Amino acid sequence: MYVILVYDMGEARVTKMLKLCRRYLNWIQNSVFEGSISPVKLLELIEEAKQIMDLSNDSLIIFSSREERWLTKQVVGVERNKIGNFL
Amino acid sequence: MYVILVYDMGEARVTKMLKLCRRYLNWIQNSVFEGSISPVKLLELIEEAKQIMDLSNDSLIIFSSREERWLTKQVVGVERNKIGNFL
Repeated sequence: MYVILVYDMGEARVTKMLKLCRRYLNWIQNSVFEGSISPVKLLELIEEAKQIMDLSNDSLIIFSSREERWLTKQVVGVERNKIGNFL
Repeated sequence: MYVILVYDMGEARVTKMLKLCRRYLNWIQNSVFEGSISPVKLLELIEEAKQIMDLSNDSLIIFSSREERWLTKQVVGVERNKIGNFL
């Protein structure tokens, strides 16, 4: 499956979250990641994220698509990190 | 079509961008928006965004899916703004 992950965390936890997400996905902007990931790995990522997060303050949103080709990506301005192409 | 929009702008331009995106989409987190939008309206949004952006520094990424049902959304922790459900 293909996911887009965005988080909004208290500053004290941002670095840990960034490191965690980098282990599973590709950083593309600010607090935004994308990439192919198996459902099992995604669950693992979410469980680890929960350990880092203050669940009453922080927010993590994951959009997933079964197929990467169902998503089109368009970049305007600067591309912070170029990774594999979308269709 | 259904889009997820994320931006990373210089602080001086953030408020304008936020206002612009709110006119077309639903704010869900930080600098992240989502919503249904027609291809024509999306082009309009992009053109207006370009007027605000410093294209050599700012970044705007738009993921689009032809069908909303091709995307699943999962929220961990706090949901900053609750909008229509995904499947």
